[in-house]
Amino acid sequence: MTDPVYSYQSLHQFAHSIFTRIGCSTEEATLATDVLLRADLRGIDSHGIARLSGYVRLWEKGRVNCAPRISVVHETPSTAVVDGDKGLGLVVAPKAMEIAISKARLVGTGWVSVKNSNHFGIAGYHAMMALPHDMIGIAMTNASPLVAPTFSIERLLGTNPIAVAIPANEQPPFVADFATTTAANGKLEILQRKNQLAPLGWVQTSSGEPTTNPNETRQGGALIPLGSDREHGSHKGFCLGAWVDIFSAVLSGANYGPWVPPFVAFLEPPNDPVGEGIGHFFGAMRVDAFRPAVEFKNHMDNWIRRFRSAATVDGQDSVIIPGDPERTLHAQRVEEGIPLNQKVVDDLEDLGKRLQIPFSQA
Amino acid sequence: MTDPVYSYQSLHQFAHSIFTRIGCSTEEATLATDVLLRADLRGIDSHGIARLSGYVRLWEKGRVNCAPRISVVHETPSTAVVDGDKGLGLVVAPKAMEIAISKARLVGTGWVSVKNSNHFGIAGYHAMMALPHDMIGIAMTNASPLVAPTFSIERLLGTNPIAVAIPANEQPPFVADFATTTAANGKLEILQRKNQLAPLGWVQTSSGEPTTNPNETRQGGALIPLGSDREHGSHKGFCLGAWVDIFSAVLSGANYGPWVPPFVAFLEPPNDPVGEGIGHFFGAMRVDAFRPAVEFKNHMDNWIRRFRSAATVDGQDSVIIPGDPERTLHAQRVEEGIPLNQKVVDDLEDLGKRLQIPFSQA
Repeated sequence: MTDPVYSYQSLHQFAHSIFTRIGCSTEEATLATDVLLRADLRGIDSHGIARLSGYVRLWEKGRVNCAPRISVVHETPSTAVVDGDKGLGLVVAPKAMEIAISKARLVGTGWVSVKNSNHFGIAGYHAMMALPHDMIGIAMTNASPLVAPTFSIERLLGTNPIAVAIPANEQPPFVADFATTTAANGKLEILQRKNQLAPLGWVQTSSGEPTTNPNETRQGGALIPLGSDREHGSHKGFCLGAWVDIFSAVLSGANYGPWVPPFVAFLEPPNDPVGEGIGHFFGAMRVDAFRPAVEFKNHMDNWIRRFRSAATVDGQDSVIIPGDPERTLHAQRVEEGIPLNQKVVDDLEDLGKRLQIPFSQA
Repeated sequence: MTDPVYSYQSLHQFAHSIFTRIGCSTEEATLATDVLLRADLRGIDSHGIARLSGYVRLWEKGRVNCAPRISVVHETPSTAVVDGDKGLGLVVAPKAMEIAISKARLVGTGWVSVKNSNHFGIAGYHAMMALPHDMIGIAMTNASPLVAPTFSIERLLGTNPIAVAIPANEQPPFVADFATTTAANGKLEILQRKNQLAPLGWVQTSSGEPTTNPNETRQGGALIPLGSDREHGSHKGFCLGAWVDIFSAVLSGANYGPWVPPFVAFLEPPNDPVGEGIGHFFGAMRVDAFRPAVEFKNHMDNWIRRFRSAATVDGQDSVIIPGDPERTLHAQRVEEGIPLNQKVVDDLEDLGKRLQIPFSQA
C-alpha cells in the first residue's frame, strides 16, 4: 500500500488555516507554513506537517504564543540576542535570521542568539535565507534532551542540528543540514513505525549498552552522538552537540542541556528552568566581506565539480554534494505532491475536526 | 623500555634555536615555539616537536618563508582576509587570531580567513587565545588531502580540525579540538609505529574497502570522515570537513580540497594550484556582545558541572568535558617533562647536527 499523496498547495492551505486559527497573523501564518512545509518538500518528513498537531498541542498548553512580540534585547554591530516571547520557532527563527543578514550587510557578518523560542522546523531553511544575498548562512538549535554524552547514561542533549548554506555560481549551493547524532530522531521514528531494527551505534539502552531496538529511547535509552562509540569518535559528536547547545542557549539565556523543554506537550518542562524556552543560533557572512563574490562563487563551482566527479567505490554513482538529494526531492514534490504516512493523515484529520478546518486530499 | 623524557625548557630552547637558525626573528621564533610545544604539553604529540624537522625541510625547499610580511588584504569591520606570505602557520595563525580578537573588541565578533600559510600546529592553541579576553574562540584549518568523502576512493580533504574554546568562571574552560575524521592521522601514526591494527571504520583501502591495516594510507587508501560509514553518518563528517575547507580556503583564496599542498617536503605541491598555500579560518566572539560576561560564565559553570556529574555507564568515572584531559596532561608535563618516542629523538638529533645546534637531554 502506497502512502496517499497531497499537493503542496492543499497542505499549505490547511496548515495556514490552522496557524491562523490558533492566533497567528496572516503574515506569520504564511511564514510558519512556508518553514514547516519546506521540511516536507526536502524530504525531512519528521520535521514537516507531521509536527503540525504537536505545535497546536503546545499552544493549547499555553507554551506557544501565537502573537509574540519578538524583540532584540541586546546588540552590538555584529551581534544580537533575540527574545522570541514564546513564539513559534517557525516564525521567530526566520525573523532572527533576517537580523543576522541585516547586520552582515552593514559590518560583514551578523550573529544572533535566540532565547524563549520553540522548535524551528529544519535548520536548513534558515541557513538558506542567506543565499540570495550572496551570504553564507549558518543555523543551529538545541532541542529536547534525547542524547547521552559519551560514557553517560543520561539524556542531556538534543539532536542539536547544524546547517551551513554556501552559495555557488553555476552550481547549486552547498547546503549541509544534519543532526549531531549518528542518526536523526526522525530516522528512528521511521524504524519504530515499520517495526524494524536500528543499526548498532544509533541507540543505547538505559544502562548504556548498545542496542538495535529503536524503541529503547521510550524506555530510558538514548540516541548516541555522531561517531557511535568512543573508539569511532562519539566524543567529537558530543563536542558538536555541546557547541550547538552553548551557542544557542548559554549565549542567549535560553534553557540548555537537560533543562530544554520537551517538544511533546504531554511532558512538562523541568520545574527548575535555567533560562527561557529553547535557543537557536544564526550566522550570516557576506561573501564579499572576504573576497569578490563572483571570485568566491566561481571557486565554489570548481570545488563542487571536483568533488562531484571524484572516483567512487564500486556501486556508487558519485559523491553526494550536501543539499543535492534534498533539492531533487523538492523539485519533484512541488510537481508530484507530498506523500504522507497514514498515521500522519489520521492525525491531521483529527486536528482538522477539532479545529473545524477540514483536512482533505486535493 | 620507556620513552626518554625532556624538560619543556630544553625542548623550547632547542626549537627556538632552530627557528632562529632558519631565519625567524626572536619574537617569531618564540611564538612558533610556544605554538608548536603546546601540542606536546597537551598530549597531541603528532603535532608538536615531532614535526620540527618537517617544517625545516619545507623551509629548505623554499616553501616556507621565515621573514614573512603578513598582511590584511581585505577587510570589513567584522572580517579580514590575511595573506600569510608563505610564513610558518605557527606564526601566521596567532597573528590572524589577534586580528579576529581586535575586531571582536570593536564590533562584537571578528572572523579572519587566511591564505598563503602553512600548517599551524594545534587548532586549540589559537581558539584558546580568545579566552583571557572573555571571548569564545574558533579555529579551523585545511590540510594535506588524506580523507575520502563518503562513497569516494579519492583523497580530497585533510583531517581538517575544528577547535572551539568557551570561557567559564570557576570551572576551567570548555575546549573542543578535534579532527573531522573518525580518528586523527596522529592516532594512525601511533598504530603504524607500534605495528598494531586499526579499528574498522578509521581507514579504507584504495578501492574503498574497510580495512584494519593502518598502513593503507601509504598505499592509496584513505582516512574516513567522522561517522565511519554512510549508515553511521560519515556524510556528516564529510560535511564538517568540507565546511572547514571552504571557510579556510575558498573564502580566503588558498588552495582547497585535493589542491592543498602536502606537509611533507618530499611530495611536491600540485602544479595546477587553485589558490595560495593552505588556508585557516578564525573567529572570536565577545561573550558580552550577547549577555553580561559574568552571567554567561556562571551558566557555563552550571553547564559544565551538570555534564561532568552525569550518571555514567559501568566502568567510567565521569563524562569528559572537552579540554579536561589535555589540561591535566599540560600541568603534568610542565612539571615532569615531555616523553619523546625514540624515532623522534633520533630525528631531532639529526636535525641538530645538520643545523649545528646540539639536541641533548636536559
